[in-house]
Amino acid sequence: MSVRALPSYAFDRWHVATDAGAGVASAITGLEVARIGQQRLDFVGMAAHARKVGGPALRALTFHQRASLLKGLADALLARKEELYELSRHTGATRSDSWVDIEGGIATLTSYASKGRRELPNDTILLDGDLEVLSKRGSFVGQHIMSPLQGVALHINAFNFPVWGMLEKLAPTLLAGMPAIVKPASATAYVTEHAFRIMQEAELLPAGALQLVVGGLGEMFDHLGGQDVVSFTGSAATALKLRAHPVIMRENVRFIAECDSLNATMLGPDAGADSPEFALFIKEIVREMTVKAGQKCTAIRRILAPRAAVGAVEAALKQALAAVKVGDPAQEGVSMGALVSRDQRADVRDKLAAIASDGRIVFGTPDGVLADAPEGGAFLGPVLVHCDAPHQARHIHDTEAFGPVATLMAYDGLDDAIALARRGMGSLVMSLFTADVAVAETVVTGVAAFHGRLLIVDRDCARESTGHGAPLPGLVHGGPGRAGGGEEMGGLRGLAHYMQRTALQGSPRMLAAISHRWFPGAPQVYDGPHPFRLKFDELAPGRSFRSAAREVTLADIEHFAHFTGDTFYAHMDEAAASANPLFGGRVAHGYLLLAFAAGLFVDPAPGPVLANYGLNRLRFIKPVKPGDAMSVELTALARNRRSKDQGEVTWDVRLSSQNGELVATYELLTLNAA
Amino acid sequence: MSVRALPSYAFDRWHVATDAGAGVASAITGLEVARIGQQRLDFVGMAAHARKVGGPALRALTFHQRASLLKGLADALLARKEELYELSRHTGATRSDSWVDIEGGIATLTSYASKGRRELPNDTILLDGDLEVLSKRGSFVGQHIMSPLQGVALHINAFNFPVWGMLEKLAPTLLAGMPAIVKPASATAYVTEHAFRIMQEAELLPAGALQLVVGGLGEMFDHLGGQDVVSFTGSAATALKLRAHPVIMRENVRFIAECDSLNATMLGPDAGADSPEFALFIKEIVREMTVKAGQKCTAIRRILAPRAAVGAVEAALKQALAAVKVGDPAQEGVSMGALVSRDQRADVRDKLAAIASDGRIVFGTPDGVLADAPEGGAFLGPVLVHCDAPHQARHIHDTEAFGPVATLMAYDGLDDAIALARRGMGSLVMSLFTADVAVAETVVTGVAAFHGRLLIVDRDCARESTGHGAPLPGLVHGGPGRAGGGEEMGGLRGLAHYMQRTALQGSPRMLAAISHRWFPGAPQVYDGPHPFRLKFDELAPGRSFRSAAREVTLADIEHFAHFTGDTFYAHMDEAAASANPLFGGRVAHGYLLLAFAAGLFVDPAPGPVLANYGLNRLRFIKPVKPGDAMSVELTALARNRRSKDQGEVTWDVRLSSQNGELVATYELLTLNAA
Repeated sequence: MSVRALPSYAFDRWHVATDAGAGVASAITGLEVARIGQQRLDFVGMAAHARKVGGPALRALTFHQRASLLKGLADALLARKEELYELSRHTGATRSDSWVDIEGGIATLTSYASKGRRELPNDTILLDGDLEVLSKRGSFVGQHIMSPLQGVALHINAFNFPVWGMLEKLAPTLLAGMPAIVKPASATAYVTEHAFRIMQEAELLPAGALQLVVGGLGEMFDHLGGQDVVSFTGSAATALKLRAHPVIMRENVRFIAECDSLNATMLGPDAGADSPEFALFIKEIVREMTVKAGQKCTAIRRILAPRAAVGAVEAALKQALAAVKVGDPAQEGVSMGALVSRDQRADVRDKLAAIASDGRIVFGTPDGVLADAPEGGAFLGPVLVHCDAPHQARHIHDTEAFGPVATLMAYDGLDDAIALARRGMGSLVMSLFTADVAVAETVVTGVAAFHGRLLIVDRDCARESTGHGAPLPGLVHGGPGRAGGGEEMGGLRGLAHYMQRTALQGSPRMLAAISHRWFPGAPQVYDGPHPFRLKFDELAPGRSFRSAAREVTLADIEHFAHFTGDTFYAHMDEAAASANPLFGGRVAHGYLLLAFAAGLFVDPAPGPVLANYGLNRLRFIKPVKPGDAMSVELTALARNRRSKDQGEVTWDVRLSSQNGELVATYELLTLNAA
Repeated sequence: MSVRALPSYAFDRWHVATDAGAGVASAITGLEVARIGQQRLDFVGMAAHARKVGGPALRALTFHQRASLLKGLADALLARKEELYELSRHTGATRSDSWVDIEGGIATLTSYASKGRRELPNDTILLDGDLEVLSKRGSFVGQHIMSPLQGVALHINAFNFPVWGMLEKLAPTLLAGMPAIVKPASATAYVTEHAFRIMQEAELLPAGALQLVVGGLGEMFDHLGGQDVVSFTGSAATALKLRAHPVIMRENVRFIAECDSLNATMLGPDAGADSPEFALFIKEIVREMTVKAGQKCTAIRRILAPRAAVGAVEAALKQALAAVKVGDPAQEGVSMGALVSRDQRADVRDKLAAIASDGRIVFGTPDGVLADAPEGGAFLGPVLVHCDAPHQARHIHDTEAFGPVATLMAYDGLDDAIALARRGMGSLVMSLFTADVAVAETVVTGVAAFHGRLLIVDRDCARESTGHGAPLPGLVHGGPGRAGGGEEMGGLRGLAHYMQRTALQGSPRMLAAISHRWFPGAPQVYDGPHPFRLKFDELAPGRSFRSAAREVTLADIEHFAHFTGDTFYAHMDEAAASANPLFGGRVAHGYLLLAFAAGLFVDPAPGPVLANYGLNRLRFIKPVKPGDAMSVELTALARNRRSKDQGEVTWDVRLSSQNGELVATYELLTLNAA
């Protein structure tokens, strides 16, 4: 690996540093692997470029097009992933640590690409919730929409996941339609820079959509505004400093923080030393202490065990930790790598000293020194502290040693365990090892408000569990209070941080046109061919069909009952049906109405409607009695293109009686040829 | 009205002030109407009382019980509303101004009560989104839940809506399950105190749920934490000061702000002087300038008209403003009352001077002096400023004169209009008067990200429109950037500010038990009677029924087609059906499958199932061909009690073929006797 000064990427081209800069050392060998130079970038211009060029280009794409973009970036990274593994080794990571970072990051992109295709419309407008009818006659209605913010997203990432950390922020940002500027942490910026380069070289990104700053951000913060977003991962101290910036405060710049977190794990009182949950608990703690050498914001820092079990837990942990082999991940048998740097190691040692003053070290040494670690690297052995008086402790609940350090403590009863867990004052994640649903319900009720994620491990899920420390793209990542008060990912929830919710109010005609769908009260077109004769592209929302009426006879009801076997008394027994106040006499089957409705609106010959693949929100509003006549009105509600050749059409269907009263409503889903 | 020192309400009792305090003057007469004294309250203890007593009591109630509480408070206020109108007059409000405050506030409580009953479960747990399957075999799943924060909500309200301002914050807070401390603005605290007193005297609130601080908050901010919420309405300067408090910053206390907002209204280029939209535009501006004497955070401050129309707009506004009669609202014919205080009037005059320096006053006088205003009051006449160079203006886009003051400006084309609207740098609301959907779509796309609410007025909705200035409980209220970056109300969205979202992970069994519902993979009980024989209370989620198989014959399909009239080719024409790749031959009607399914699971005799009132999420997964045999599995998914006697049950329904392949799934909705 050649040592080079890392460039930045601004205004759609690379910018080399203007001085030699400072060296970044390999965590394994101590040798220099990259240099971070001073960049004389026009930071204000970069933000403006993102806002003026990148934003409009991304907003012009539909959600499906943005999803394809994410998929393309993921494919490009996957094809060149070995280049990233090669670099990643120098961050101190084992192959499996790097797998989490590299392939976990790519999987996050892929997940957002897939959710974007499946769960978002092939359109530039995103509706939030249902139509709100705001007036008696329905001429004034409301609809919430989500729009991409028109500023720039500034992503300030931590050193520990140079690839995943960039991608988990970029995926929802780009899918939402916002451009981003990525600022990696210096210690591992050489990995981020290479992943960024691979994405740029894929030539998929619109101009201005993505920029990279290696080194400081200069005066960029002085020029942020209310349409911008800062998303920060790192220490609480830095978060506080950035969030307190006068411009962030004055302009109400959105600030998402994900910080220090004293994540706890808890062994349920039901989980005796022979239980599967006990063994799973020990295994998970050792995994969390050693993966990434404990440099994970989600790692277990506090271990809560019932007083009766704490001795067994300590013994089992000591035994398991003794089997951990720390060293150069390139060596056979090594299960834990190095901290990212010697500075980081010094910091962990400082924090460890504070934590250890609350108890006693029962595994490892006060400075984590390893007898046989390679020279030059930033190695540190795992350290387990046992705290005997956790309620009196001064450091264990608020000092995060960002390394392979955890504290064991005993609790007396679930209330005590909950009180200790809450002492974290807000964490990213907590795990609970129990097979007892009552224990789980009590603990969840007690601590959920303090956590962004709660993992409950039992023998049923352990085999497939992704573990305490793994944030997943479909679940929220973040936590209240000390953990920063932010939220990331959570599937499409993650897009909201980069969008503005707006309540639109107006006439149904106006809101339907803006929303690219039909709303009740908006114009309907009945002329021309049956709407089932129209191709996807011809089928504007509001195209309607009104059927003839069909009488529902007692003979129809009896016939349907015997044919289907549905002889429910409401359809068959006049006396019993009369006794039910909802019916007041025999009524038609709801499914008979659905079937007759289809008979009234279906156009039999082959045409653009390829299939009816489902129904949503069917409600039977008023019973239909023998002798009533029903008719159907069908209106194209919304369209969602799926491919060049096909798209989904949602239809509003209303069944009415001869008096014009609604008897049933639903949404019909069809697949149509384009 | 007797003058009295307003007490505070803490620790579930009233506390009188310990000194005579400062007087509050009537906005109409200038005479003293109340005194705000110094309170020697234990502020830290108050917050602790809310957290330790009020919070647990509220969290023990179900959402429906909390909704009933809101309804009870609304009823109590409604019964004594005239007492509030009597006090409200002294704030300078006309009867219709007070109606917005008093009855608008009560309606907000009622709306949340109704939404709580209709849209939330009768349970203490709230699920957010669907189950996330996190593993291949489905033994590891995720479910987001929302939990009430375990701290206290501190509501700091503005003077302009002493009743509504309190209630619009309280409704979502109490429904979410959080206790609150209300701090009204001094100038109108006598109205808030009385509304608060009416609610306390209704004796519905659990101890610790609600406290009131008249006067300063002492050292309360020093003791807030990550489980607390501050919700502030008022000036941007005060918001900035409070938000920058070291404890708010360090502890990541949630801070919702709703501040200064330079709300714009825009006349579409299509709306000529003879159009209905032109007349509506003029009427709305005058209304917004005069209601509450312009003391509304949502009032129109900036008026954007096409250059060709700006002269006509100015002339029409001058004519309409000349008809406004300012004075004591108790007098006949008065259409606009006073500002809240002489201090407030002095502040408006200062801001008006700045705004007027950007243009020229075309209606009213520089100090808003009225020749015939009653003595002693805080009256100020409406003032219209015309700005000829709005892009060069220094004050009109960022200085909010919180009174009957607005600025008119011309725009040249929609891009220019959008650019001017954005100069507000984030507003609560903007309105657009147009009948042209293309104009509306362009403007919405351009400005939505800068606004929390956008009102589009055309001739279709004008009659029923609630207007530019009216926040509604079902729609979000708040705006990005200068408007504070906060969000309130928006129906159930408003609860999220007082709750923590947590991703639960675990086995289906564990998550189902915690969520009080059944999830695929969680245990099912097939023993015992048919689940349709079980009463609501006996019907635990997971109760299942597995039917016998029934063959679907070609004769069934033909019979169903002729009976219903649904002779779609996929069912009737082998050649055509074979040509459709989705079918590959004749298939059974989806509605035939639904009907046969009901025949297979329905239990005919009268019993606890009162009705099948609907279906959700029906999907036809695989076609069923002649000769296939189908069977049904039905599982109780969730229950929602509606009354002592009845409740709703949601059932998971799965239709399978003889190979065990799923052919259709849906959720069945029944009403069951308890």
